[in-house]
Amino acid sequence: MSYPNEVTITEVCPRDGFQSLPDSIPTDEKIEIVNKLIDCNYKQIEITSFVHPKAIPQLKDATEVVQGIKRNNSVKLRALIPNLRGLDRAIVAGVDKVKLMLSASDSHSLNNANSKTFDAMKGFESLVKRASESTVIVSGSISVAFGCPYEGEVPIERLSAICERYIDLGILDLSLADTTGMANPFKVKQVIRVLREKYPQLKFSLHLHNTRGMAFANAVAGLEEGVTDFDSSVAGLGGCPYAPNASGNIASEDLIHGFEEMGINTGVDLDKLINIAKILEGKFPIQSDSFILKAGKCSDLHIAPKEQKKLG
Amino acid sequence: MSYPNEVTITEVCPRDGFQSLPDSIPTDEKIEIVNKLIDCNYKQIEITSFVHPKAIPQLKDATEVVQGIKRNNSVKLRALIPNLRGLDRAIVAGVDKVKLMLSASDSHSLNNANSKTFDAMKGFESLVKRASESTVIVSGSISVAFGCPYEGEVPIERLSAICERYIDLGILDLSLADTTGMANPFKVKQVIRVLREKYPQLKFSLHLHNTRGMAFANAVAGLEEGVTDFDSSVAGLGGCPYAPNASGNIASEDLIHGFEEMGINTGVDLDKLINIAKILEGKFPIQSDSFILKAGKCSDLHIAPKEQKKLG
Repeated sequence: MSYPNEVTITEVCPRDGFQSLPDSIPTDEKIEIVNKLIDCNYKQIEITSFVHPKAIPQLKDATEVVQGIKRNNSVKLRALIPNLRGLDRAIVAGVDKVKLMLSASDSHSLNNANSKTFDAMKGFESLVKRASESTVIVSGSISVAFGCPYEGEVPIERLSAICERYIDLGILDLSLADTTGMANPFKVKQVIRVLREKYPQLKFSLHLHNTRGMAFANAVAGLEEGVTDFDSSVAGLGGCPYAPNASGNIASEDLIHGFEEMGINTGVDLDKLINIAKILEGKFPIQSDSFILKAGKCSDLHIAPKEQKKLG
Repeated sequence: MSYPNEVTITEVCPRDGFQSLPDSIPTDEKIEIVNKLIDCNYKQIEITSFVHPKAIPQLKDATEVVQGIKRNNSVKLRALIPNLRGLDRAIVAGVDKVKLMLSASDSHSLNNANSKTFDAMKGFESLVKRASESTVIVSGSISVAFGCPYEGEVPIERLSAICERYIDLGILDLSLADTTGMANPFKVKQVIRVLREKYPQLKFSLHLHNTRGMAFANAVAGLEEGVTDFDSSVAGLGGCPYAPNASGNIASEDLIHGFEEMGINTGVDLDKLINIAKILEGKFPIQSDSFILKAGKCSDLHIAPKEQKKLG
């Protein structure tokens, strides 16, 4: 029962959420939403992805969004990048941090990045070199780390080999992503325990999807293994391409509400965040998916029906 | 990371699910569904509630359902009972076990049973006496054990006092119910650890609702504190009266799929169960709520889109 006193939540809706919407949101609306998110006191926001506009047209205004928002000193902006061109755009735009895209399995990697996992990692050297000439910090990621929708089980030896390659590159901040919700608490504990023991120099964060209803349980499993960094998406925007109606990213308000109920401080203003979630739910009712939006917080008490009758 | 090798799941849809539907299901349809559930190898099914037909008309055919199904020796039938009249009906109908209704907080108890918690428990003596003259086994319950929607926090001292009263009555099998989804993993661990240490003679089971997205995490917290008995409802039927669109009972297929993915044997035939869930979802699309119905099992692998194109 030893949980950390505080954790860091990275808000990924502006990247993972917006890229999964069927249409692009106008740039000024994106900027308004991100400004509201900054006002919730997030320490980090995944602001966009610098991918080719033809690949994800929803994020083609990445530079305009980064440069249009009201930044402050307490929030770091992270962007996802697939290649050198993306890194260059991210540096020019002025983000604090980039996250490299990588899939744990060859089949997922071939499908997302047109090359096998370790071939894709060969390209990372030039990215690290270029970033070192800027002020931008490089972090890594491992998608489908807890299971691949095409191959199933991802062996821990494979995750270890990827970690070692990242260490060789000098990248020590790694996001383990349960991209299609195949993790379970046992697997999360097992993977993180092994990797943290083998590579104490690495700092792992968890990016969890609630596809099979286990995201919060997986987050708690991560907490119990010492993870204190988590991604989530306000209003639960961000889906699962393999099951169009299935849940995607864990909703920030669900994760933060749950952690706060457990006595774990996130630093995020939950009431302000719920208001943003309501606005997004109004705009994107089909893509939104959040328990707290439906049920309210635990602290939102009710008047008993019999009392209501008396009052009525 | 010590999880039990096996757990017992009690299917509560025929009670908690059916009572929450806006209309009554025809008796023969109920019997057909229960027969299919028995065929999934459940060890226990909460078959109905012997309440006054005016209170819950959806369950007015309780006796006909119990007597109409095809029983076998491996499944125990449990029924919820509110009073002596209900117990008598349950005995005549021929259930194996009854579960007494009780709320942890006075305001919830007043609203549900027209008396305060410990006043309601006074009536339990005559129930225990009557049951002892039959073959029916008596178990207890504590609703809103992890939080009351009217009062908020339920002090652990109050839960202890209820447990002691149950022990005095000779009732050692207790269901702790998170009736409106106010539990979190920290609270579940804390409550169960304290109660199990104080009252090692009691056997606790968990009845969890997914109202705020934490049901599976709470189940895992229970597992980690030694609980091996859980309630769930196929297709997630069974709601939350305070938030009409919110999630209710954790879906059996979600709980069982999650446990099985963690290597914990439930003994329930998951594929047969998913087929029943699909039938119920077809009949009651608004009331159904299940991750596995939307996303499939983790083991349902996909063909990569690029492979699909090649094949096409």
